[in-house]
Amino acid sequence: MTEVQVTTETTARDLRELEELKYRYVRFLDTKQWDALGRLFVEDASASYGGGAYRAEGRDEIMSFLVTNMGSESFHSSHTVGQPELIIDGDSATGTWALNDVVIDTELGVYISGAAFYEDTYVRREGEWLIATTGYRRSFEYLVPISDMEHFQLTASLWGTGGRSSLVAG
Amino acid sequence: MTEVQVTTETTARDLRELEELKYRYVRFLDTKQWDALGRLFVEDASASYGGGAYRAEGRDEIMSFLVTNMGSESFHSSHTVGQPELIIDGDSATGTWALNDVVIDTELGVYISGAAFYEDTYVRREGEWLIATTGYRRSFEYLVPISDMEHFQLTASLWGTGGRSSLVAG
Amino acid sequence: MTEVQVTTETTARDLRELEELKYRYVRFLDTKQWDALGRLFVEDASASYGGGAYRAEGRDEIMSFLVTNMGSESFHSSHTVGQPELIIDGDSATGTWALNDVVIDTELGVYISGAAFYEDTYVRREGEWLIATTGYRRSFEYLVPISDMEHFQLTASLWGTGGRSSLVAG
Repeated sequence: MTEVQVTTETTARDLRELEELKYRYVRFLDTKQWDALGRLFVEDASASYGGGAYRAEGRDEIMSFLVTNMGSESFHSSHTVGQPELIIDGDSATGTWALNDVVIDTELGVYISGAAFYEDTYVRREGEWLIATTGYRRSFEYLVPISDMEHFQLTASLWGTGGRSSLVAG
Repeated sequence: MTEVQVTTETTARDLRELEELKYRYVRFLDTKQWDALGRLFVEDASASYGGGAYRAEGRDEIMSFLVTNMGSESFHSSHTVGQPELIIDGDSATGTWALNDVVIDTELGVYISGAAFYEDTYVRREGEWLIATTGYRRSFEYLVPISDMEHFQLTASLWGTGGRSSLVAG
Repeated sequence: MTEVQVTTETTARDLRELEELKYRYVRFLDTKQWDALGRLFVEDASASYGGGAYRAEGRDEIMSFLVTNMGSESFHSSHTVGQPELIIDGDSATGTWALNDVVIDTELGVYISGAAFYEDTYVRREGEWLIATTGYRRSFEYLVPISDMEHFQLTASLWGTGGRSSLVAG
């Protein structure tokens, strides 16, 4: 019975570590912490974005893709992940996740939003779980030009206002 | 103390299984995997949708309701669930969940979104947790005709584009 | 080894209790259960809202701020939290969370939405985890007057329709 307990507890800890790996991934992405983000991938990781429309091989190419496409301070994003379905097999793991994302690019003047399901794989290296492959298929994605919402206002931005709202309250 | 430990570990595994049951439920719903979805309900399950506006009794009636209302390939949905508050009592359990959903029906030309809190019950049958009752009350729900957003574009669809985005990146 | 197990199991239970504390917080907020919400804070709690734009010191001032700003039945909100990154140290804990929120105020005629990351602290008092400090920085926030969406309809409201949708289904 002791064996089973140890296995179970290890599993619980691994599940939590895999979840936090994914949560840090999207947090570093949305707050543009690129160096911290890069350290979450194995060197030979591969990534598929845009529901398979764009592919990047290796950590350097992945990071280059992300910084090029999401690095601008006019690019505001929220990548929300949840609904983890994780399977651990020794030092490997697979994960299915729901994604809901919103992008507001004030320079391009677009609002983009969508939903998808990720299928990731992870590997443990020197005791730490890292992303090996990541990719998703979109249930849907849509774009609305901001000019379609005549009185749209961006009322807070991590870059423009340090994350403070300009709305009046109280 | 061994008793308590076993109980606690069982509870942790049960909580995870109940979470994955709910996550599979919404994933199968949004990807229209109807057979897999049906197998998550007990045969005499009952469901309330639309915040109590529509009721279905029994797995067959529930599946008929879902396929009729969400089966069309013009119907794109994201049902996001999280914030589990679960209570397990032997082979029964209750769950409170937050729901945020988006529906885009390109044939009806509507965008519908809302938030709700689910109150579900679950039962364990032959070692597997299944949905016994499910229902929610909406905090709010709203509808906007897509024609109100003059240049709205659906840029990806699991059915129309195999989940790939048609947006240019890189 | 028994010691380690006890610690690990305690940690698992504490993590779950901290998660449920946060989930109840947003559920009580969005369903306007103010008394229940107040009991989740320590008496000398402090809170920062609006990405640091507004501050409240002490449970009474926090509750006064929330009731004043979110108490009206014209104010519909969904505060969705997830992606917990929790660290427990004895009877203290810290938590990083993702927030996605939507506010629809039918009297003010505004739709407001945004994303943020919370940095909270918690303390355990008489065996129960409570909120000591809460605050977030917004990745972004935006406002659209409802009048920009010409045929916008609120189709359900916890206060207006008891949470039932007025949309036709079936």
